[in-house]
Amino acid sequence: MSVFTKVSLEEASQWVKRCYSIGKVVNLRGIESGIENTNFFLDTDHGTFVLTLFEKLTASELPFYLNLMAHLSSHGVPVPTPIKNLENRFLGDLNGKPAAIVSCIPGAPSTTPTSDQVRLVGEQLAHMHLAGQSFEGHLENLRGRAWWTKAADEIYTFLDERDADLLRTEIAYQAEFVDDAIPKGPIHADLFRDNVLFDDSRVGGFIDLYFACTDAWVYDVAITANDWCIRGDGVLDAGKLQSLLGGYASVRQFLPVEKKVWPIMLRAGALRFWVSRLYDLHLPRPGELTHAHDPNLLKCILQNHRANLQIFPE
Amino acid sequence: MSVFTKVSLEEASQWVKRCYSIGKVVNLRGIESGIENTNFFLDTDHGTFVLTLFEKLTASELPFYLNLMAHLSSHGVPVPTPIKNLENRFLGDLNGKPAAIVSCIPGAPSTTPTSDQVRLVGEQLAHMHLAGQSFEGHLENLRGRAWWTKAADEIYTFLDERDADLLRTEIAYQAEFVDDAIPKGPIHADLFRDNVLFDDSRVGGFIDLYFACTDAWVYDVAITANDWCIRGDGVLDAGKLQSLLGGYASVRQFLPVEKKVWPIMLRAGALRFWVSRLYDLHLPRPGELTHAHDPNLLKCILQNHRANLQIFPE
Repeated sequence: MSVFTKVSLEEASQWVKRCYSIGKVVNLRGIESGIENTNFFLDTDHGTFVLTLFEKLTASELPFYLNLMAHLSSHGVPVPTPIKNLENRFLGDLNGKPAAIVSCIPGAPSTTPTSDQVRLVGEQLAHMHLAGQSFEGHLENLRGRAWWTKAADEIYTFLDERDADLLRTEIAYQAEFVDDAIPKGPIHADLFRDNVLFDDSRVGGFIDLYFACTDAWVYDVAITANDWCIRGDGVLDAGKLQSLLGGYASVRQFLPVEKKVWPIMLRAGALRFWVSRLYDLHLPRPGELTHAHDPNLLKCILQNHRANLQIFPE
Repeated sequence: MSVFTKVSLEEASQWVKRCYSIGKVVNLRGIESGIENTNFFLDTDHGTFVLTLFEKLTASELPFYLNLMAHLSSHGVPVPTPIKNLENRFLGDLNGKPAAIVSCIPGAPSTTPTSDQVRLVGEQLAHMHLAGQSFEGHLENLRGRAWWTKAADEIYTFLDERDADLLRTEIAYQAEFVDDAIPKGPIHADLFRDNVLFDDSRVGGFIDLYFACTDAWVYDVAITANDWCIRGDGVLDAGKLQSLLGGYASVRQFLPVEKKVWPIMLRAGALRFWVSRLYDLHLPRPGELTHAHDPNLLKCILQNHRANLQIFPE
């Protein structure tokens, strides 16, 4: 589970009463998912919110994420809205950790999404990219090339020769790629199925923006495709992909340069998550119960993308 | 009805598609209430919003209201949230009028509120005042002393001698009052029953903040009491008043100076709305179908407050 820092109902009540305008706290429920932070559902007599204590991100790193969420919310993009405290700040301090309260997104994830749902995710992702254009914050992708190159160096020792070779050659391949001409902006960078909540037939919201960064829009689409449009054997489902890209393009058309780099972006997305899953498996952080995902599906996706050039479908 | 400027579904669709990140417009429904602006419910495939075309307020006056709504929303106070367009602005231009889209508040007004509902309104009003403390905008009360003095000069001719005398003596009484020591900040200034929506047992939100201004908090409470806690004969209901003030004080305690000026504030609130209703009745603006309210209840409230000193109840 993922409640690393304990908070009592009394502590939360006093803190909210002193610092916020969201009513009286009536209940506090630990959230068992999530890897990086401590999360609670916080029920007040005005509604349900999410209380997050940041375990590793520091108060100086957090403004990018919270300001981005506030920016996107103010544009009507359904992401958790950070709530300001009486000092007009998103971040406070609770039990020694930076802490924030955000709105609670309605709905539940769809583990077996329909084509309609995949299309909606594509539309909403394009809206998120367009709304993010006017966001002034900037954060380099902390899980980009420099990161995966460094992380891989710690992983090779755990891999057999074939996997080590695959990792090494893909990292070398991606290092050759120069992407200056691709449109960039704030991206979610982790839009897997568990980070989208559906509320009836709508996207209730995109959650967990704590991997968000400034990077290529089409890379964000590729990461999304690698989860939403992948069959069990690691091969892209052409129909689902058409739904995702069609939904996206109905809001924002892809540029020729984005179509051109599509196969590289798919491989980069698969690489980034293969590396992080290998890392979490072989080098779990002490004292933390991470929900380690099996790295093999991501390896399989990467292999398929390498074996079959993924031309952008027209 | 109050759709002064026509907007077609096609015009709204194109405008939203070009300027916003809130999905595709599927329906547009004129809202028949409201006096000052043209309002529509705007349904997109992402949800329902409210589209407002400002008929008299100009683009230079509107930022106070829209920024205040955004500020309060960001603090979790349930008021309509203005949606930013792709230029990162709350205000756009539609069919020649300044136009904004705000979130749609759930719920419906309560014309015969229970004591519990009155208490909730008091709590929420105190939260609104506290959250507004950190708002940087400032707008003098455009319906304050200068306004009612000037408006009254146009009204006297329509009144019989007793009413004219009542109006004249109350304006003179209020002019004597110096209120520098009373806590001030952004106030709603028009929190009548039709401007609070209840959603199940909660306050869904405060709406219509277009009379908001910087003025005394306790004056806002008095305006609210004059509608929520008044019996049909214009006399304050002691139980309802206890609910309102108790709810408010559970979030923010009244200062001695606020209790001291309470009877003056009640009279000022009654005067302000008596004058505006007399004005709307006798001097309706040409070409507008205002929903003229009967001024007599407000006169009756004012008379009662003058006849019976309204000591702040302990």
